[in-house]
Amino acid sequence: MWSLPPSDSVLHLLAFVALTAQGMTAALAAGRRSMDYVGVCMLGSITALGGGTLRDLFLGHYPLAWVANPIYLVLPGAAALLTILFARLVHRLQLAFIVLDAIGLVVFTMTGCDIAWQMDVSLPIVIVSGMVTGCAGGVLRDVLCNDVPLLFRSELYASVSVVTGLFYATAFGLNLNAELWTILTFILGISFRLLAVRYKWEMPKFVFKEDER
Amino acid sequence: MWSLPPSDSVLHLLAFVALTAQGMTAALAAGRRSMDYVGVCMLGSITALGGGTLRDLFLGHYPLAWVANPIYLVLPGAAALLTILFARLVHRLQLAFIVLDAIGLVVFTMTGCDIAWQMDVSLPIVIVSGMVTGCAGGVLRDVLCNDVPLLFRSELYASVSVVTGLFYATAFGLNLNAELWTILTFILGISFRLLAVRYKWEMPKFVFKEDER
Amino acid sequence: MWSLPPSDSVLHLLAFVALTAQGMTAALAAGRRSMDYVGVCMLGSITALGGGTLRDLFLGHYPLAWVANPIYLVLPGAAALLTILFARLVHRLQLAFIVLDAIGLVVFTMTGCDIAWQMDVSLPIVIVSGMVTGCAGGVLRDVLCNDVPLLFRSELYASVSVVTGLFYATAFGLNLNAELWTILTFILGISFRLLAVRYKWEMPKFVFKEDER
Repeated sequence: MWSLPPSDSVLHLLAFVALTAQGMTAALAAGRRSMDYVGVCMLGSITALGGGTLRDLFLGHYPLAWVANPIYLVLPGAAALLTILFARLVHRLQLAFIVLDAIGLVVFTMTGCDIAWQMDVSLPIVIVSGMVTGCAGGVLRDVLCNDVPLLFRSELYASVSVVTGLFYATAFGLNLNAELWTILTFILGISFRLLAVRYKWEMPKFVFKEDER
Repeated sequence: MWSLPPSDSVLHLLAFVALTAQGMTAALAAGRRSMDYVGVCMLGSITALGGGTLRDLFLGHYPLAWVANPIYLVLPGAAALLTILFARLVHRLQLAFIVLDAIGLVVFTMTGCDIAWQMDVSLPIVIVSGMVTGCAGGVLRDVLCNDVPLLFRSELYASVSVVTGLFYATAFGLNLNAELWTILTFILGISFRLLAVRYKWEMPKFVFKEDER
Repeated sequence: MWSLPPSDSVLHLLAFVALTAQGMTAALAAGRRSMDYVGVCMLGSITALGGGTLRDLFLGHYPLAWVANPIYLVLPGAAALLTILFARLVHRLQLAFIVLDAIGLVVFTMTGCDIAWQMDVSLPIVIVSGMVTGCAGGVLRDVLCNDVPLLFRSELYASVSVVTGLFYATAFGLNLNAELWTILTFILGISFRLLAVRYKWEMPKFVFKEDER
């Protein structure tokens, strides 16, 4: 995430908002596991930054965003700690956080695509880079909380990321007006995600129980 | 895995077969956890590619194989999705998949050794590189399924990889006929693994229960 | 860890001791999960080397320490295997291992700070590098044992690492006598950790149970 071109200042601002929001919802997950303040802070940072970190490792994109700008690391960690004070409030504002999380998903996905594109990889890898950036932090959070990742089990989340990435990446090839395309992608992604949450759209599940063994 | 020298075309073909097979068996694991289609697809890709990815990260071997050739990513993911349709069949063909999995273990191990060797590391690291390539994908699969990795608990799996790697690596030093040695290693590895499955050879376990605490 | 400047020979020696000790305590964790010998050996190596490996990946610091010096890999793995023979003894020497583990925490933290400093990153990243080096191995161990990481749940561990790192890093800026500062940091870190264990100092926990949902 986050090594956005300076022109994309709105996206940049939204990325900060999203980092904060992800740190805060991760703090609630930490609280459900009765972690201590260190765990809350770390889980916040890892959830918010895990996706971008994995993407940078996969692409060999050094220095990592948070190594170059430690503020990315401090922000979600601090937000997670603050959440301890306002847990009830954060929980009650669930709806707001669903929106903020959707913003994070879409903005991180777009940033992931941007960075991959700058590194001159093929189109499928641009999409995967967007998806890893948008989704992998939550997978790390669930693994550290000792859960099967939510991403693999329910809701349209990765799918939103893939659709957003596909739509966004089309623009790279077409030389369209970049700002217009960014706004369109953003609206599409957010709408898709919020509709999916509202109407409980879900991927079908694959349930396999063997008889023997 | 998989950045095989073009001459090793048979190994290359076998690697494709193994990627497919690993994606398919990972899909069954996903089905046992009732994951949705996204989870099935991702778990398939992660299981098949995780070992090679970790090896590339450890050795600083960029670009990663699947970044350079996205087909490596698509193949096991697609195979995993197809498995949803044929789950019963795949399960009934258990024996065939044990053989395919053994092929994967041996082929990935050999590729891991090849790549490490090209990067001029010491012999122990060549062996470790083979083992990581052959075994780490299954560890990631088990962690994401919220299990203690099977690799750490039972069966001769990592040991087959180490023995295969040791035998294979001996050739590097000896300047033997490369093709002959490749075939010999392949036969040795497969036989060892299949005998271990057939006769239920196992590593002894270390069971430690403290009285107090 | 461990790419210590040659002058720091005492720190270097202590790092070897710490690698061994971490391999041995990881072996007990493996035994509690009834892992086989392969699992014991791997868990020992991963626990001892995981922190340094993650740090090197994050900083792009190649070659990894254990790739350059495979002895770092062999040592904790071998120590873990030996522990199978002496499990009762190791368990009874709990107090000694608490001291050895504290040495590991402090020495690894200092090494992580050293390496980050050499790579010219900002002060917060120097501290984070120390903390990742000192603490991440235990997180990997717990994830592989299918536990919520102990680091996130109790005891002053990461905090000791941060305080040690902060104190140590101050010296970098001040051009003080390096050896004196190293010794002071070491004593401070060890004392803090042992006092924390002795008097059961703990971070407050964040317990969050929602009523509904």
